[in-house]
Amino acid sequence: MLRARQWLYLALEVQKGGAWATFLNHFLMVLVVANVVAVVVESEHAIYEAYAPFFEWFEVCSVAIFTLEYVLRAWICVESEHIAFQHPMRGRIRYLLSPMALVDLVAVLPFYLSLFFGLVDLRVLRSLRLLRLLKLTRYSHSLALLLAVLRQEADNLISALFILCMLVLLSATGIYLVEGHIQPDKFGSIPRALWWSAVTVATVGYGDVVPVTLVGKVFSGTIIITGIAIAALPAAILASGMINELKRRRESFRFELVRAMENGKLDFGGLRYLEKMRVKIGISRADARLVFEEVKQETRLQTYTNCPHCAQPLVIKHPPGHIHVRPAKR
Amino acid sequence: MLRARQWLYLALEVQKGGAWATFLNHFLMVLVVANVVAVVVESEHAIYEAYAPFFEWFEVCSVAIFTLEYVLRAWICVESEHIAFQHPMRGRIRYLLSPMALVDLVAVLPFYLSLFFGLVDLRVLRSLRLLRLLKLTRYSHSLALLLAVLRQEADNLISALFILCMLVLLSATGIYLVEGHIQPDKFGSIPRALWWSAVTVATVGYGDVVPVTLVGKVFSGTIIITGIAIAALPAAILASGMINELKRRRESFRFELVRAMENGKLDFGGLRYLEKMRVKIGISRADARLVFEEVKQETRLQTYTNCPHCAQPLVIKHPPGHIHVRPAKR
Amino acid sequence: MLRARQWLYLALEVQKGGAWATFLNHFLMVLVVANVVAVVVESEHAIYEAYAPFFEWFEVCSVAIFTLEYVLRAWICVESEHIAFQHPMRGRIRYLLSPMALVDLVAVLPFYLSLFFGLVDLRVLRSLRLLRLLKLTRYSHSLALLLAVLRQEADNLISALFILCMLVLLSATGIYLVEGHIQPDKFGSIPRALWWSAVTVATVGYGDVVPVTLVGKVFSGTIIITGIAIAALPAAILASGMINELKRRRESFRFELVRAMENGKLDFGGLRYLEKMRVKIGISRADARLVFEEVKQETRLQTYTNCPHCAQPLVIKHPPGHIHVRPAKR
Amino acid sequence: MLRARQWLYLALEVQKGGAWATFLNHFLMVLVVANVVAVVVESEHAIYEAYAPFFEWFEVCSVAIFTLEYVLRAWICVESEHIAFQHPMRGRIRYLLSPMALVDLVAVLPFYLSLFFGLVDLRVLRSLRLLRLLKLTRYSHSLALLLAVLRQEADNLISALFILCMLVLLSATGIYLVEGHIQPDKFGSIPRALWWSAVTVATVGYGDVVPVTLVGKVFSGTIIITGIAIAALPAAILASGMINELKRRRESFRFELVRAMENGKLDFGGLRYLEKMRVKIGISRADARLVFEEVKQETRLQTYTNCPHCAQPLVIKHPPGHIHVRPAKR
Repeated sequence: MLRARQWLYLALEVQKGGAWATFLNHFLMVLVVANVVAVVVESEHAIYEAYAPFFEWFEVCSVAIFTLEYVLRAWICVESEHIAFQHPMRGRIRYLLSPMALVDLVAVLPFYLSLFFGLVDLRVLRSLRLLRLLKLTRYSHSLALLLAVLRQEADNLISALFILCMLVLLSATGIYLVEGHIQPDKFGSIPRALWWSAVTVATVGYGDVVPVTLVGKVFSGTIIITGIAIAALPAAILASGMINELKRRRESFRFELVRAMENGKLDFGGLRYLEKMRVKIGISRADARLVFEEVKQETRLQTYTNCPHCAQPLVIKHPPGHIHVRPAKR
Repeated sequence: MLRARQWLYLALEVQKGGAWATFLNHFLMVLVVANVVAVVVESEHAIYEAYAPFFEWFEVCSVAIFTLEYVLRAWICVESEHIAFQHPMRGRIRYLLSPMALVDLVAVLPFYLSLFFGLVDLRVLRSLRLLRLLKLTRYSHSLALLLAVLRQEADNLISALFILCMLVLLSATGIYLVEGHIQPDKFGSIPRALWWSAVTVATVGYGDVVPVTLVGKVFSGTIIITGIAIAALPAAILASGMINELKRRRESFRFELVRAMENGKLDFGGLRYLEKMRVKIGISRADARLVFEEVKQETRLQTYTNCPHCAQPLVIKHPPGHIHVRPAKR
Repeated sequence: MLRARQWLYLALEVQKGGAWATFLNHFLMVLVVANVVAVVVESEHAIYEAYAPFFEWFEVCSVAIFTLEYVLRAWICVESEHIAFQHPMRGRIRYLLSPMALVDLVAVLPFYLSLFFGLVDLRVLRSLRLLRLLKLTRYSHSLALLLAVLRQEADNLISALFILCMLVLLSATGIYLVEGHIQPDKFGSIPRALWWSAVTVATVGYGDVVPVTLVGKVFSGTIIITGIAIAALPAAILASGMINELKRRRESFRFELVRAMENGKLDFGGLRYLEKMRVKIGISRADARLVFEEVKQETRLQTYTNCPHCAQPLVIKHPPGHIHVRPAKR
Repeated sequence: MLRARQWLYLALEVQKGGAWATFLNHFLMVLVVANVVAVVVESEHAIYEAYAPFFEWFEVCSVAIFTLEYVLRAWICVESEHIAFQHPMRGRIRYLLSPMALVDLVAVLPFYLSLFFGLVDLRVLRSLRLLRLLKLTRYSHSLALLLAVLRQEADNLISALFILCMLVLLSATGIYLVEGHIQPDKFGSIPRALWWSAVTVATVGYGDVVPVTLVGKVFSGTIIITGIAIAALPAAILASGMINELKRRRESFRFELVRAMENGKLDFGGLRYLEKMRVKIGISRADARLVFEEVKQETRLQTYTNCPHCAQPLVIKHPPGHIHVRPAKR
């Protein structure tokens, strides 16, 4: 029983444990994708009509499997390394409140809700199943990286979007003042003008609403050009966020590496451990190699540092980039 | 009286001072947002007709409150830490000329102007109230960061937009030469062609004006592709500006940290102070932690050093990345 | 015979070897471009009709030449410096499986396939010749750099596109729920709505499908604004990838430089070698000069050091940023 | 005579020399702008008709002035600090072949050409005057920075645009294969399809040409999404180029600073010199301050480095980040 739980934990959470574990995870991924496809396809009314029973049956099965998965994950979470999750009672509750668990819950909840009080709009309900896509985030490292960056930079991004909204609002007001009386149905009020300004500032430009007067064109021309600068803010924020995040990860990998080389040399176990850290920290092989090169360069020095005249060791112990000199005991 | 002024200063400018202060600030923020919503909504003529008295009343109230706020801020500014603002007379004048104070002024001035000589167009006047949005910039750190970056890079951004305008101008000229005689109403002169080229270079592409001849299409095709490279300049400028700004802030936080650790260890007060600095300088917790890690690494060395001449232990105290030598207590 | 093979290897793979080699490479490049032009032009039916025999003849010649090139490259690959390719049998097989060789194969294969079983659609077949463009990648360093970055960041880019697709899917679902009943032909089902949402999120905005209801416009307005942030992810990923890649290259050039200066000074041969490395590593002259400056600065120190125990001069020899100590010759 | 030449050189090239020099430069800038405005305005036929004589007169005057400027600059160039330009004969020729001089030439040449053989199309001729805009690049530092970055990254940008063109070509071929028979007039051949694919990949999306079949929409949907990633390349290239360029400039400013502080302290003259360097190198005040801070931190150490037990100097001489220890003479 316990061994089963352990195996399941490794299989589901660490995605280790041989062919069966791999199969299990792939099966779950395929199932999620299949669900999404089903949602998309069955929204086409004719198709749904034709295969309604199949879709119902598929939905029931998936919900059953996802529920089972949800329960199992709640059962095995106590195997986690995190002390927080190890307590049979409190640990499980903590797990159930963790983001991934909530995602799993959201993936099945709507179905049960609709069972108990079926007065939800079916189409809305079905569409909610798209949220099952979120379950995939568990399986990709780079996806996790991007989401980490997005979370890191959330404040800045929101501020950038706030600035964008201010620009949209101001340009809507401007066009409303300039062309409100010419195209009253499109620019007759700020709320109506907002549609045009949002579409324009975001450089989507459907062309269903376009200024016609000279003044209007000059005004929106300036808005368009300046809009380029403002619309570039998110890219800038994400770029700097990405770079910082990777830098931070390289640094923490460097710390791991330095610690692992304390004794000057790396045995096979140490390398295995480092590789695991690399994947867990999530930096590319190339970067890891670069860090490794540098640290090796530094530590290689320790062996050369005897004074050849009095042959006394000049032990160098330093974090990258720093140095100091200690004479040997006399 | 003085205590009240002090409390008000902390509440309004530092946003400290318990529940009432928080309430006060939130109330002001909500009021600003409500004003903006009002401006947007009442621009819809029908709605304005229906609730004109309410809108008038709301406007009067808000102006009253904002005026009061303006006066109060002018009254309390002498409590500031900046020596520049502490003089009762000159300090207040200096404050009134500071950007934030001018924003507050702009938020109420139009109303009074319209009272004295009411010949301003009402719609323009009302729209001006949107500028009250600027009052919100006082409350967000990341917004301040973005504005700082935009100010930093203003020159480069203007140059980039200048280059963009040159491209717009040249492409307008080109299309005017190529298709001027085919679509005289749209490309018949450079000014007319400018509308198309601005919309195209900014990749908005309404589609209300489109080249039709083969030559025209080839020409604007090349413009479109090269335009991508030019339109990418602002993003590049802002990205590098963002990265530099954050680097600068990390550095100055590092200086703070090193100074705070002069005596080798950090007490609780020091940590509180550092946290305050972190928020004030405006870098993320993750970055702060990284800087902290590094500085700790460096200072960890202090115990290992000896003077090379008399082999007595030395204590290293150094700014990040550098080293100098001081004797240990005997 | 062997000398010919050697010359051919230098000419074709290293692009060295005097006027004839240059001519050979330029001829091949021109031929590729001519082929692409031919594909594009002859797709215009009228033109193809007029000059069919010429196009056929040109195609046959080019295929002949490319085949010859393919065979020759397979013949000469054993001259390579890479030990992997030097074995007459295994080496050649390895080469034939290398990306560049496969590109060369793809450039000619379709022709032969169509000869043997001619039941391929001619238009598809002809279009496949466009892939010959890939042969050009062999001749540009910066192109190789960009492709390296794209490969490096492939995972992150795919994740970013995955996030984009999720946004597209969700917005399609949203618009389908909101306006499905108003424009059933356009938003009547998620698959149909997908077209609109893809065009919108990518800010292409053809304008052939546009929301008309207020709710629809509000919804897609929010999607458009938030879309800007998500659509900025690839730019951020590529920017950070580019910066890291260049940093890595500068580092490895620095290693080369330090190694070349082991003996403290650089002779002419060393400089020639470094220049070759610079081009091969692919960093700009300006960067190389900067690295050179720094390393020189560091090595300038070598004259100043003494052993702290016996005060005899030491020579510092260190990898960039680090230091270790070796006695001067007596 | 010589003094006049010297004054003119300072005024025109260094933009130094009191009110008259400033006036001179501003006058030239205004004149350039006025010329551009004239070109734009007179392209409106009606306006040109009305004021033809004025426009002619204005054109003649400007050409006269620009010619005078051109001659003067050629006359005074020998005052330059660059040894290359100081030789009365060869120096002047060298100057005349420098980019800025060629720009000045291009600004006036068309006029004279049209005089001698007047068979140039007048409209084309007039439009060429827009190139006088380039004369403005002489007056802005940040503009020079951007152009430097663009030049630096020219190769990479061209490669990026090449990749973009490949994508455009492939998508054009794809849509031609998929919808060629449905919309023969728009997708009937690759050349025709190119217009759509260029407009689409660049996310301009006029909407004058849109795929209609399901397959076509699926295909162009994938092109659009992947197009985002490719179209992000220029932004990435420019961002990394910008960052590197600024880093290089900071470094060279740092070298200047270290050299200026060799003797440990900075006198007023040194600061003036550094400020001049800062402007010339073109880095922001904030960056300069940061570099200054760091270097000060480093050099401040030199005073502390006596061993307090044997009171012997431990002279630290290092480029930023490096250190070594030398015992005092015994």
